[in-house]
Amino acid sequence: MLYDLTAVQFSKMLKNLSLILEKGEVFANLKKVDMVVLLNSRLAPDQFNLIRQIQIACDTAKIGVARLTGNLETVPKHDDTETTLPELQARITSVIEYLAQFTEADFAAAATIHVSQPRWEGKYLTGYEFAIEHAIPNLYFHITTAYAILRHNGVDIGKKDYLGPMPYKS
Amino acid sequence: MLYDLTAVQFSKMLKNLSLILEKGEVFANLKKVDMVVLLNSRLAPDQFNLIRQIQIACDTAKIGVARLTGNLETVPKHDDTETTLPELQARITSVIEYLAQFTEADFAAAATIHVSQPRWEGKYLTGYEFAIEHAIPNLYFHITTAYAILRHNGVDIGKKDYLGPMPYKS
Repeated sequence: MLYDLTAVQFSKMLKNLSLILEKGEVFANLKKVDMVVLLNSRLAPDQFNLIRQIQIACDTAKIGVARLTGNLETVPKHDDTETTLPELQARITSVIEYLAQFTEADFAAAATIHVSQPRWEGKYLTGYEFAIEHAIPNLYFHITTAYAILRHNGVDIGKKDYLGPMPYKS
Repeated sequence: MLYDLTAVQFSKMLKNLSLILEKGEVFANLKKVDMVVLLNSRLAPDQFNLIRQIQIACDTAKIGVARLTGNLETVPKHDDTETTLPELQARITSVIEYLAQFTEADFAAAATIHVSQPRWEGKYLTGYEFAIEHAIPNLYFHITTAYAILRHNGVDIGKKDYLGPMPYKS
């Protein structure tokens, strides 16, 4: 289940983010403003701008899955140098491609693996705790904040763009 | 696991939301503005205000768990009449108390139960799909948006307030 919650669903949410950013670009073109203005927008002076929200959403997804599957050494690196939408879309695409390599079997030990970060000073969470209380809330936080920055600037997006398509059955 | 992802984690996030709102009240007192001004703030003219974000976060949590456990008939009702912070905090508390009644055993059939809503025109999602692709992203969306509205207005809150305490082990 951690596979579906992270590798699969994170990938879906990054795809949704990509489409939301495309709507941002349509809006920018319509209003004759440079998309870079939107990318540098933020909701508070001491909050990260849209570029950084996208970068962190990507990192939360790729590093979260890498940690849960014990692949931290091979996670793709990104240098946080993006300044344009095409560069950011390329980053999103590369993370989606990375996530697509994983299968349910890669998560066999994910729930019990010990996950730590330098700032945790030697302490750890189980993979189960890390996924539920850290990675998942963080992923949604940064994608919602990216959405909120665009929404605040007038971009015509709604909840359906954030959630993406549902696998409805009849 | 759906129990931990919804009943337990939703409850934690609502508690975090409650503490974030308390920080909003501290800020309002400091700036000598009525908390009701913050509660009626929104990030875009056609987006829900803070009051409605809190109400929907509560509803997403209580109705999500009710649907997953087949308890939709007994879910506590709220009339969406709150206008003040104490009323909203009472709503949050009532949902946390409702969620506390559930146990892992109540979720035995949650993954395979059929979940539908009037607007879905007879279609359904499995409980598993509903939890992962609908309820969980929605819960984080509305709590992050509530956070973003306060953050945008200058309230001194950060990621730690959103995530809440982590069960670190050494």
